[in-house]
Amino acid sequence: MSAPRPVLGVGVLGAGTVGSQVIRILQSSREDFAARSGAEMEVRRVLVRNVDAPRDAPIDRELLTTDPAEAIDNMDLVVELIGGIEPARTLVLRALNQGISVVTGNKALLAAHGPELYEAAASNGADLYYEAAVAGAVPVVYGLRESLAGDRITTVMGIVNGTTNFILDAMSTKGLSYEDALKQAQDLGFAEADPTADVEGFDAAAKCSILASLAFHTRVGIDDVAVEGISSITKEDMEEAARVGHTIKLLAIAERRIGEDGREGVAMRVHPAQVPSDHPLASVDGAFNAILVEGEAAGRLMFYGQGAGGAPTASAVLSDLVAAAHHRAFGGHAPRESVYAHLPILDPGSTHTRYQIRLQVEDRLGVLSDVAGIFARHGVSIQSVHQRNDEVPGACVIVVTSHRAREADLRAVARALSVSDAVREVTSTIRVEGE
Amino acid sequence: MSAPRPVLGVGVLGAGTVGSQVIRILQSSREDFAARSGAEMEVRRVLVRNVDAPRDAPIDRELLTTDPAEAIDNMDLVVELIGGIEPARTLVLRALNQGISVVTGNKALLAAHGPELYEAAASNGADLYYEAAVAGAVPVVYGLRESLAGDRITTVMGIVNGTTNFILDAMSTKGLSYEDALKQAQDLGFAEADPTADVEGFDAAAKCSILASLAFHTRVGIDDVAVEGISSITKEDMEEAARVGHTIKLLAIAERRIGEDGREGVAMRVHPAQVPSDHPLASVDGAFNAILVEGEAAGRLMFYGQGAGGAPTASAVLSDLVAAAHHRAFGGHAPRESVYAHLPILDPGSTHTRYQIRLQVEDRLGVLSDVAGIFARHGVSIQSVHQRNDEVPGACVIVVTSHRAREADLRAVARALSVSDAVREVTSTIRVEGE
Repeated sequence: MSAPRPVLGVGVLGAGTVGSQVIRILQSSREDFAARSGAEMEVRRVLVRNVDAPRDAPIDRELLTTDPAEAIDNMDLVVELIGGIEPARTLVLRALNQGISVVTGNKALLAAHGPELYEAAASNGADLYYEAAVAGAVPVVYGLRESLAGDRITTVMGIVNGTTNFILDAMSTKGLSYEDALKQAQDLGFAEADPTADVEGFDAAAKCSILASLAFHTRVGIDDVAVEGISSITKEDMEEAARVGHTIKLLAIAERRIGEDGREGVAMRVHPAQVPSDHPLASVDGAFNAILVEGEAAGRLMFYGQGAGGAPTASAVLSDLVAAAHHRAFGGHAPRESVYAHLPILDPGSTHTRYQIRLQVEDRLGVLSDVAGIFARHGVSIQSVHQRNDEVPGACVIVVTSHRAREADLRAVARALSVSDAVREVTSTIRVEGE
Repeated sequence: MSAPRPVLGVGVLGAGTVGSQVIRILQSSREDFAARSGAEMEVRRVLVRNVDAPRDAPIDRELLTTDPAEAIDNMDLVVELIGGIEPARTLVLRALNQGISVVTGNKALLAAHGPELYEAAASNGADLYYEAAVAGAVPVVYGLRESLAGDRITTVMGIVNGTTNFILDAMSTKGLSYEDALKQAQDLGFAEADPTADVEGFDAAAKCSILASLAFHTRVGIDDVAVEGISSITKEDMEEAARVGHTIKLLAIAERRIGEDGREGVAMRVHPAQVPSDHPLASVDGAFNAILVEGEAAGRLMFYGQGAGGAPTASAVLSDLVAAAHHRAFGGHAPRESVYAHLPILDPGSTHTRYQIRLQVEDRLGVLSDVAGIFARHGVSIQSVHQRNDEVPGACVIVVTSHRAREADLRAVARALSVSDAVREVTSTIRVEGE
């Protein structure tokens, strides 16, 4: 009765944890995918570095190739899951320049070369999809790019890195030190041997810039994000947070607001922060990701799910593939890069946040007044002060939490405290968000 | 330099709370929408019953008409926000049959006539979008129809009715009776004067059937949903739930599972249930909606946001409108109805759940053994029993919580208890979910 379904050739670049799941599911649910996209998808070649390497899921050996041309040229769709900048960039461009649609999970590539890839896609009539690059299975790229296309977004705030979330979780619930929690994450496969990209916040910053581009229709890069990692968070910071009913999370925050020159702009930052325990992000555990989005009309939305792992990430890749396949077979195309707003990047120092500063001070009369004076001189008002004796004789601990103030002024307060005679040591400064 | 943007005419049917917000935002953010969809959208006519009625947001009087033909014919896009079955059905079909794409927020219409509308859309090359029909601003239709197109969904469980959520919330946090909480909801505008559709679960059932159709690629209707409302929930039920660390929510649940005949099928139900306080749905307060989706690859995802209200619902309508406008101007189309799976509807009695049954029994030796015997005879095993003295002399209260068992067996237990000599009264039966 009906016309035979078109058959689309799919080349997969990379057969690691995610790639092998993508291939497995594409093959095992072939009929489902055909019914949903209206076209058959056939994995025709899988690019690997070594055809003899062990795989997470078995792959038909004759699909494997080490020649990029075989896995890209003459395909209808290409899935890039190699990661990193090169050779991923060259291969993705090779596909797009031939008009082949690309689905990628490569956040580093997008954060560094997004505009170039978008332009190659648009000028060759190809789709570029990348749901899996931001938060694993969580459909936040879809959400921002399509579901919220009818709204003006003001804030995106999320937990987008599972490694750091696992570490902070272990510190908070098991009372581990940062070093022990990191070791545990490494032992369980949640952290790399070299954890720098995760724990220093670079992975979250790349994702933050992708989310901000989508939310604010503006080109931003990873270098526009003010980044601070979690490696200086201590057990004591966790205890202090718990004392006030808070927990510590690594947040990626992108905001649209009026800058100090009166113009609207975008500010982006990644840093650990205390959040109240009843905040929606506080209960996001382990390897889960969650992204809060505030729209002028929609109000607050949250997207929540698994941020990493072979199958969850494959789920995101496959949805993108269904959409790209549908366009290939029946016309239409993915949303192009939308950067019409061209908002300026705001100075991170002009961001408003709150600090909790923990100090070791001399145990003498008047020291609190000295400390409070430093806050006042920088125009920062204090919300609460908590004082207790320290284990060190002659010293006590003061924990000061500010009201919302300019980041630059808060930093100036911390600097002034560190050189004040009244203060022995600024033990910790941490931001407080979500109140 | 670039070609002038196409200008699309938009007809809006209904100018109530949502309609007037849609018109306001379309007009105030006209440039934003044009940049995002690539086409200008111009509201050309607004169908109302009475041009002189007061509006939530002012609408240019010359846009208003009482003639459906003026608001539909010759438009490129039509937004239907009248609600109810007729005349909405006739008007939506009038648009679709002319190849005009329709965005609707009408869950009753979709639940009752979805297939007819889908067919009219597909055969005339028009789009049919309805994000606003299910959970206000929460992009769960997008999520199921597009973001999860690469996965096999097993369960959808959500809070999709703000009125009942508000009432249960007020009962739980303020200790109100059902009647007082309903009155408060009515006074605050969260419940209609005739609250039947909300409190008896019919609104949630319509949404449940729409979600199930999307998740399981199967045509289902509202009559396939087993429905139970919240009007019999008492203060005592809330206290009992709190005692075991639970809260009571009205859940809409759609599951794909193997039926008792060994074939895969779909089961749908709407009913109040106890959920543990640390369950993601437990903390969904007031007018918020949240939908948990379990995918075989994605694992658990949650979509959360405002389920009602003019601006949030308008946000969903406008995103749909951007997508439809883009297709109209540049080709491509919305996903068509996907019902290829044709799964059978499973008998609700075969669903597995847990019951908590509260009984008033004779205060005599052996009564617990009698009660336990009734459970055992129906093959239902008991997880916990809690016994306490009642205010009534000679009686005591037993609260029995079962393990998971067949709904039909649990119902048989409740019936047998109600006629047992040992039992004075079955005070309450409530399901327990999410553990």
